[in-house]
Amino acid sequence: MNILVLGGDGYCGWPTALYLSQRGHNVAVVDNFSRRLWDHELGAQTLTPIRSLPERLRAWERLSGKAIKAFVGDVTNYTFLTDVATEFEPDVIVHFAEQRAAPYSMIDREHAVFTQMNNVVGTLNVLFAIKEIQPSCHLVKLGTMGEYGTPNIDIEEGFIRIVHNGREDLLPFPKQPGSFYHLSKVHDSHNIAFCCKIWGIRATDLNQGVVYGTVTHEIEQDETLINRFDYDEVFGTALNRFCAQAAVGHPLTVYGKGGQTRGFLDIRDTVRCIELACLNPPARGEYRVFNQFTEQFSVLQLAQMVQATGKKFGLNVSIEHLPDPRVEAEDHYYNAKHTKLVDLGLEPHLLSESLLDSLVNIAVRYQDRVDQSLFLPRVDWRNTRNDRKSNPTYAKATTAGERVSAD
Amino acid sequence: MNILVLGGDGYCGWPTALYLSQRGHNVAVVDNFSRRLWDHELGAQTLTPIRSLPERLRAWERLSGKAIKAFVGDVTNYTFLTDVATEFEPDVIVHFAEQRAAPYSMIDREHAVFTQMNNVVGTLNVLFAIKEIQPSCHLVKLGTMGEYGTPNIDIEEGFIRIVHNGREDLLPFPKQPGSFYHLSKVHDSHNIAFCCKIWGIRATDLNQGVVYGTVTHEIEQDETLINRFDYDEVFGTALNRFCAQAAVGHPLTVYGKGGQTRGFLDIRDTVRCIELACLNPPARGEYRVFNQFTEQFSVLQLAQMVQATGKKFGLNVSIEHLPDPRVEAEDHYYNAKHTKLVDLGLEPHLLSESLLDSLVNIAVRYQDRVDQSLFLPRVDWRNTRNDRKSNPTYAKATTAGERVSAD
Repeated sequence: MNILVLGGDGYCGWPTALYLSQRGHNVAVVDNFSRRLWDHELGAQTLTPIRSLPERLRAWERLSGKAIKAFVGDVTNYTFLTDVATEFEPDVIVHFAEQRAAPYSMIDREHAVFTQMNNVVGTLNVLFAIKEIQPSCHLVKLGTMGEYGTPNIDIEEGFIRIVHNGREDLLPFPKQPGSFYHLSKVHDSHNIAFCCKIWGIRATDLNQGVVYGTVTHEIEQDETLINRFDYDEVFGTALNRFCAQAAVGHPLTVYGKGGQTRGFLDIRDTVRCIELACLNPPARGEYRVFNQFTEQFSVLQLAQMVQATGKKFGLNVSIEHLPDPRVEAEDHYYNAKHTKLVDLGLEPHLLSESLLDSLVNIAVRYQDRVDQSLFLPRVDWRNTRNDRKSNPTYAKATTAGERVSAD
Repeated sequence: MNILVLGGDGYCGWPTALYLSQRGHNVAVVDNFSRRLWDHELGAQTLTPIRSLPERLRAWERLSGKAIKAFVGDVTNYTFLTDVATEFEPDVIVHFAEQRAAPYSMIDREHAVFTQMNNVVGTLNVLFAIKEIQPSCHLVKLGTMGEYGTPNIDIEEGFIRIVHNGREDLLPFPKQPGSFYHLSKVHDSHNIAFCCKIWGIRATDLNQGVVYGTVTHEIEQDETLINRFDYDEVFGTALNRFCAQAAVGHPLTVYGKGGQTRGFLDIRDTVRCIELACLNPPARGEYRVFNQFTEQFSVLQLAQMVQATGKKFGLNVSIEHLPDPRVEAEDHYYNAKHTKLVDLGLEPHLLSESLLDSLVNIAVRYQDRVDQSLFLPRVDWRNTRNDRKSNPTYAKATTAGERVSAD
C-alpha cells in the first residue's frame, strides 16, 4: 500500500512513517519543517536531540533496508501537493501536517489567523487533490478529541442519534472546541464530511486524545531515529511536560484545580491506530470518525502519577496549581466512547509504571537541555496579545484548590 | 446608537443601512466593493441599474437630511478595521461583509479557498477588533439557515437540548452545510461562540433564510437609491431569478424535482430583524442564534407562484426541471423554528400576490438588461473545475419529474 504521510517529520508523523514502513508499506513523507521553525520562533527546543530529516531517513534505510522518500514542501501549495500525489500515487494520505498546539493559536490574532488558514487550506487542498488526482485514495485525517469540548452527556464517536419531537436522525456530534486550534479541526471536519458527500471521497477522521511517550519499537533501534519530546508550555503535552519538570526538580504546573479530564494515549498506540485505519478503509463517499485514545485521566491524576514515579527516582516532586490560562471547566463530567479502533484490533498500551519510568528516565538523561523558563504558561486565553517574553500574570503560583478561574 | 454596517453597499447591507439611518441611528458603512467586482468577473450585472456608493449616499442625505459615513476598505485588513472602529466607536457592528453565494464558492478550488479565507478571516478580525477596541460592542452577524442542512428532525434556533444515556445538555445544533460557502458560515459560528465565551463578547448570529424582494420603504423614495436585483445562476436567489425569467419569457429553472424546502423572507423583514437584534442586545458573553426567516416553501412552490403571477401579466411562463447541479436532497423533511424574532416584535411581510406583482413588474421594467445566458446553472457541485463560459452539462433541460439527480 502506498501511504503518504503529511507532516512526516513531526512528533506523531515521524514514528508513524517508521512504523508503516516497518510493516511493509511503501511510505513517503511530506514536510515543510514548520514545526522546527516554530521552535526557533518560541526559543524552545525538543528535549531530545532530533536529527535532520535526511539523517533520519538514511539511518532508517541502513537499519531496515527500507527507503522512505521525502517531499519537502507545504501542503497549502496546491501545485506542490498535486505534483507529489501524481508522482507517488498514494492509496492513503495520512494528514498530520497542521499547526497542532492550542496555546500557539492563542498567542495573538496573527497566530489565530495563521493556524486556521494553514490548517483549513491545507486540508481543502488535500481534498481537492484526492478528487482530482487519486479519487479512490483514503484520507486518514488527524482530528482531536478537543473538538467535542466537555459536554454534560456521553461523547460518541463523531455522530449521535437524536430523538426530538417524535422524530429522529443520526447527526454530527455537536462541537464545542476550546481554542482557535481546536476550532480549526472542527472546520476541517465539516469540510471533509462535505467533500465525502459531494465527491465520493473516503475519509477517516481520527479524533485523537493527548499523546504521551516518545519511543516506539522502531525508534528505540537507533539513537539517530530519536523522536521529539516537547516540554515547553506551548507544544509540550501535559504528561511529557510533567516528566521533564520532575527530572529537573521543577514543580509540576497544573492549571487551576487540575480536574480537567481528557482522553490520553501512548504514542505506540497512535502509530497502530493509523495503520488500523489504513488497513480497514471506509467505502467511497463515507466519512467516519474514530475517537483515538485509550484512557481518561484528569490532569491532576497525571501529575500525581508523575510525583509517585519521581519518588522512586529519589526526586522531590511538588505540584503547583497555577491560575488556569485557558478558559475551560476545571471540574466536569467526561465520558467519551472509544470502541471503534478496539473493534478493529487495537490492543492498548495502558499508562503503566514502566512507561512513566521510561519517560522520567529520558527526561533525566537530557536534563541539561531543559530551559526551565519554558515551563510556565505565558499564553492567556483572555488576552489578545500574549508577549511570551514577559508576562507577569503567571509569575506567581497559587495554592492548590484556590478558585483561580472565572470559567 | 452608533451602528457600523460591514458590507453596506450590498444587496442586504444597503437597505439595512438606509433603514437604520431612517430609524434615527447613527450609521456608517464599510465596503470594499467586492460584490461589484464579482459581477465583472462573472460577466453579470444586477437587473436594476444601481448607482455608485457616493451617489447613493448623497441622494440619501438630500432626501432624509441624514448622513451615512462610508469607509472604503476590506475587513480582512485588520489595521483598516481597527482604525474604523477607533474612529466610529460602534455600539453595534452588523456584519454582512462576506462572500455569500454557494455557487461562487463551488466554482473551483481557488473560489472555495477564497470564500472560506475571506469569510473566516474577516469575522476573526471583527471579533479581535471588538475585544481590543470596543469590548461592549454587540456583533450582529449574518449566518444562514443553510448551516443546518436538512436534518430529519425539527431545526431549533441554534441550540438543542439533548437527552442521552440518562444525562442531558443544551448543545449547539448539529450542522450539515451544503457548500463551501455554507461551511464558511458554520466555521464563523463556531469561532464567534468561542470568542463570546473567552472574551465576554455579545453576539447575535442571524441564521437568515433566502431573501427575496429588492425594495424597502426607504429605497422606493428615489430611483437613485435603487437596490441590487440579481438574477444570474451564481448570485440570483430563487424567487428573484424566477421573476426575471418570467419577465423575459424564459422557462423557470427548477433544479431537480424542486422539492428542496427552505426558509424565505422579504427584504423588508431582513432590515427590521437587524434593528430588532440591535435594540435587544444579548448580555456580555452571550452567543445567541435567531433563525431569521418567515415562511417555508419548496422551490417548486415558488416557481408555481411566479407562474400564476405571470399569467396575470399575460406572460406565458413554463417551468423546466434541470438536473440539480447541487448535491442535495430533492425531497425531505423540513421544519425550522423561527419564533425568537417574532417574540421581539417582528411582524412578517408574508409572500403575497402584491409582492410578486411588484417583483415581476420590476423585472419587466428592466428586461432589456437581462442576459439570458446567465440563467442556466454552470457550476456543478460534482466538478472541481467549473468553466462558466462553456459547460455543456446543463445545456439541455429535462422534463419535469424525471429523476435527474444522483443524490
